[in-house]
Amino acid sequence: MPDHVYKVVELVGSSEESVSKAIDNAIARAAGTLRHLGWFEVTNVRGHIEDGKVAHYQVTLKAGFRLEA
Amino acid sequence: MPDHVYKVVELVGSSEESVSKAIDNAIARAAGTLRHLGWFEVTNVRGHIEDGKVAHYQVTLKAGFRLEA
Amino acid sequence: MPDHVYKVVELVGSSEESVSKAIDNAIARAAGTLRHLGWFEVTNVRGHIEDGKVAHYQVTLKAGFRLEA
Amino acid sequence: MPDHVYKVVELVGSSEESVSKAIDNAIARAAGTLRHLGWFEVTNVRGHIEDGKVAHYQVTLKAGFRLEA
Amino acid sequence: MPDHVYKVVELVGSSEESVSKAIDNAIARAAGTLRHLGWFEVTNVRGHIEDGKVAHYQVTLKAGFRLEA
Amino acid sequence: MPDHVYKVVELVGSSEESVSKAIDNAIARAAGTLRHLGWFEVTNVRGHIEDGKVAHYQVTLKAGFRLEA
Amino acid sequence: MPDHVYKVVELVGSSEESVSKAIDNAIARAAGTLRHLGWFEVTNVRGHIEDGKVAHYQVTLKAGFRLEA
Amino acid sequence: MPDHVYKVVELVGSSEESVSKAIDNAIARAAGTLRHLGWFEVTNVRGHIEDGKVAHYQVTLKAGFRLEA
Amino acid sequence: MPDHVYKVVELVGSSEESVSKAIDNAIARAAGTLRHLGWFEVTNVRGHIEDGKVAHYQVTLKAGFRLEA
Amino acid sequence: MPDHVYKVVELVGSSEESVSKAIDNAIARAAGTLRHLGWFEVTNVRGHIEDGKVAHYQVTLKAGFRLEA
Amino acid sequence: MPDHVYKVVELVGSSEESVSKAIDNAIARAAGTLRHLGWFEVTNVRGHIEDGKVAHYQVTLKAGFRLEA
Amino acid sequence: MPDHVYKVVELVGSSEESVSKAIDNAIARAAGTLRHLGWFEVTNVRGHIEDGKVAHYQVTLKAGFRLEA
Repeated sequence: MPDHVYKVVELVGSSEESVSKAIDNAIARAAGTLRHLGWFEVTNVRGHIEDGKVAHYQVTLKAGFRLEA
Repeated sequence: MPDHVYKVVELVGSSEESVSKAIDNAIARAAGTLRHLGWFEVTNVRGHIEDGKVAHYQVTLKAGFRLEA
Repeated sequence: MPDHVYKVVELVGSSEESVSKAIDNAIARAAGTLRHLGWFEVTNVRGHIEDGKVAHYQVTLKAGFRLEA
Repeated sequence: MPDHVYKVVELVGSSEESVSKAIDNAIARAAGTLRHLGWFEVTNVRGHIEDGKVAHYQVTLKAGFRLEA
Repeated sequence: MPDHVYKVVELVGSSEESVSKAIDNAIARAAGTLRHLGWFEVTNVRGHIEDGKVAHYQVTLKAGFRLEA
Repeated sequence: MPDHVYKVVELVGSSEESVSKAIDNAIARAAGTLRHLGWFEVTNVRGHIEDGKVAHYQVTLKAGFRLEA
Repeated sequence: MPDHVYKVVELVGSSEESVSKAIDNAIARAAGTLRHLGWFEVTNVRGHIEDGKVAHYQVTLKAGFRLEA
Repeated sequence: MPDHVYKVVELVGSSEESVSKAIDNAIARAAGTLRHLGWFEVTNVRGHIEDGKVAHYQVTLKAGFRLEA
Repeated sequence: MPDHVYKVVELVGSSEESVSKAIDNAIARAAGTLRHLGWFEVTNVRGHIEDGKVAHYQVTLKAGFRLEA
Repeated sequence: MPDHVYKVVELVGSSEESVSKAIDNAIARAAGTLRHLGWFEVTNVRGHIEDGKVAHYQVTLKAGFRLEA
Repeated sequence: MPDHVYKVVELVGSSEESVSKAIDNAIARAAGTLRHLGWFEVTNVRGHIEDGKVAHYQVTLKAGFRLEA
Repeated sequence: MPDHVYKVVELVGSSEESVSKAIDNAIARAAGTLRHLGWFEVTNVRGHIEDGKVAHYQVTLKAGFRLEA
């Protein structure tokens, strides 16, 4: 097995529905332009409040993908 | 646009159902007494265990609201 | 009330479904061998990506249980 | 059991005697105005020095109390 | 000297001009309602960008004030 | 001198009396089942409040012990 | 409002004049190639010293921009 | 693929030779009693000094292994 | 001297041999596409274990490079 | 009032008796050689264990003193 | 180029004017007794409040200088 | 055994060869002027890159030594 190198990008996904939907949105968008996405790690969960309710969730995550040799 | 000042309060919401319901509970309760709530940030997720199952989730979050001039 | 002592173990639960299901899996597995489990605290949320989608979530948590005297 | 919501306040207690007395001072003062105080967590221990000796200890702590429904 | 107790509040000041003006705005606003403000500590510096320039700075700080006995 | 390997366990000691008594309780309990305990490090100090007073202190600590070869 | 996704990049701006000028330099340079820049957060302030004086300030910051759908 | 659960243990390996040998010593010792060891993460590198030279390195690491169902 | 701006990227290098070889692999791969690489900082050292031995080391690092004006 | 400059030194005090005695030992020793000591902050509490009991406490602290102009 | 060794000292500069003036004061004072000062890093920004206004800023920083061989 | 007090200094060792050689350089240099050096702890590993290769490693560490009574 060769010695792989990975790059890590930081993304913020948002969703009006849920935290996990915000994660999915970020991963899906990243997968549109990055190949070989392999893992993610959540670093922050926050959101906006409107009229006393959560208007949308914002999840910051790091996603790693293997660089082609 | 004037130079706003915001105050940040720390809350712990709990729920027997889910993490996101615990967030909603904390925001709803805060909105009962605080006007202009604008955002929140999750700082801790924990919970209690009873009979080998999650009895309730506890989510600590910070919530910010604009102070009236 | 006597002065209790608790032990804390670190676990990683995984689930193809959701973050909360990963928490439940870890707690259920720990409850199979540890008595008096009392609380947990999430310390990391990450996951693997396959074909541009979350393949499974991995939640690291600490779980505490009371040691018998 | 209903889904409780708690508020967390940050306090600094000081004492010329000891760290634990500084904690007690902060809790006692908070209990004078806040009902349902349930727990505290120490976040910082510092102090002032005069004439080469500790003049007083300052303990920063967070204290949580249940909000009435 | 009696054993004082202090409370710490978290504020976010904003300014279109500079980081230090954002600090001043937060302190001035807090001083309007809190007596005995004694110190502050900056915990975060961020801001918004519009048209490729800093539109306003947001400084999060903690401010402590002595509680009256 | 051979190359030793140590294991680190996380414990929470509690005491109605003091922080240091909570440390002693945790170490004493651990020493009942673990040989070669060599050091500890405090990672958290918290406690419960009842009737406006500290009901008991809870000290989280890590304790290391040498594994036999 | 659709569910936006943002990317976060890390930059270091430097300036011989001041911390805020270092921030401005980094934002201006980023705005030359990135559209929809929306916010920044300072993560480090450092600098070089020459002849006993600050030769230039270096401010590390993260800047977020919305990805086009 | 079933939903696996992993346990994480904390170890300190020491070596008179090098940091990486200290890692190897800890992993080798753990592998003697734990099956399914899958990954490790270094959390601290320290050491003892004697006669102005490094006498031995101590590497603290966390090691995870899959629990059997 | 003009006011430079730098970009920081996050990489993970892996190696079956050693931690420093994992660093070298990441730097070499990054240098293939990025000009003006100036410094790096290690943020995490971890690895995979197979058959009770380190199968490969994974070093996460940040690498900075000067942006051309 | 002139613009003072302070230096901060890091010390480890140890005591067979208690945490606070370890702090006092460190401050007293520092006061023997440093003038104008003004404050301290505890950054770590650890200790050694012998025969299943705390043999001595080690408290790491930072102490600040004003530099003479 | 020989293998240099640097020492890092921690300083607190204060100023009634601004954060950057507090940095300058600390560097200038350090340069009076330390040769080869090469860089600094800000680790804390705080200050005192009097009459509802910032009375002076206190900036904690680390400053590094090369040790002569 | 008397109650010892230790001082901790922060150093940065550099080496063109390896991380461990950078540690050795810092310890050796410190041992030239400080007696009773007892332990060290690595707090940062970074380095400079030239021509797409690591030019030298820089390891920041804290080193403790016992103060004579």
